[in-house]
Amino acid sequence: MLPQPIQQFVRVFSRLPLLGPRLATRLALHLISLDRASFQELKNALIQLEALDRCPRCFFLKNENAKLCDICADPRRNPRIIAIVEKETDIMSLEKTHKFSGHYLILGELPEKGVLENIQKSRLQHLHARITQELNGMTDEIIVALNPNSFGDFVAGIINEEFKTGAKKITRLGRGIPTGGEIEFADEETLGSALERRI
Amino acid sequence: MLPQPIQQFVRVFSRLPLLGPRLATRLALHLISLDRASFQELKNALIQLEALDRCPRCFFLKNENAKLCDICADPRRNPRIIAIVEKETDIMSLEKTHKFSGHYLILGELPEKGVLENIQKSRLQHLHARITQELNGMTDEIIVALNPNSFGDFVAGIINEEFKTGAKKITRLGRGIPTGGEIEFADEETLGSALERRI
Repeated sequence: MLPQPIQQFVRVFSRLPLLGPRLATRLALHLISLDRASFQELKNALIQLEALDRCPRCFFLKNENAKLCDICADPRRNPRIIAIVEKETDIMSLEKTHKFSGHYLILGELPEKGVLENIQKSRLQHLHARITQELNGMTDEIIVALNPNSFGDFVAGIINEEFKTGAKKITRLGRGIPTGGEIEFADEETLGSALERRI
Repeated sequence: MLPQPIQQFVRVFSRLPLLGPRLATRLALHLISLDRASFQELKNALIQLEALDRCPRCFFLKNENAKLCDICADPRRNPRIIAIVEKETDIMSLEKTHKFSGHYLILGELPEKGVLENIQKSRLQHLHARITQELNGMTDEIIVALNPNSFGDFVAGIINEEFKTGAKKITRLGRGIPTGGEIEFADEETLGSALERRI
């Protein structure tokens, strides 16, 4: 009974893990009720996301025409300290503390089950290559900035094993963060001391 | 630190009442991680919403090139029974019951405060004109299908007053205990109506 364009919108948008059919329907109805200028602004904002790309070095986001992301391209940052994070929002949270001026590697969202997916394995290999080619095979520090839960611990174990000859030290974020919590939701203070007291 | 297109996306999409900045950020990051075909599909679904319009008779949605919405255009439906609803999703809920084959009027979302906005007043006037022009000034029934709360009651009072000479009867949705509900948890008001309107 709803016109086909709405049905199509709901079908496509409710596939996104964050929405679901009810929210997608309400979103469609809200979008239709907007004036033309607001709608155009939303449409353009979506279209502009196409101009984004992943940094080939750390897998953070960059503009299509830039070679590296802003972080990798920043000469004031120390490339010998590398924080391994799960996702983009974790970088954003860590950056907000202003207590870290190293580089990153985004591992990609970890699966629920206790095995690494191919994408994560290949990104770790990529870090290996980066350390070999750019840092003569040895970096100063790898900070495993994964959520402090049992799967994070498991992946930290893998990283410890794989990089024991490629990093002078391998640390984790201090357990200022409550076990079972998520980096994304930690306040800056907690996250800051977790960085200072990394173990 | 996030590239400008994401910041812009978050700025624009977090203005939507259903999203907010955190969800908008996660949505942007998710959209970027999609493959090109899925992204195009989402983009096209959004763009297609532009091809929608409101039905000039009941204010439900219709395709741009259709004269009326599917409901108003359906000759099997009875135009002399008109349900006044707040929003599109209410029509969808009522249609799912398969127990109503009349027409509708969408009033638009009622404000929090106890006064009708101009859009609602003009839509009621519009219904007046519809009854005068299409139904010789008198319709069989107006069903006030507004949420059963005190503001719904207030608006129902206004509608009663305005259409007392334009409708043979004006009804509201029956009140009682929802199917599957429990007497123990019903509030007094609901239980009172259930007693008064027992079947």
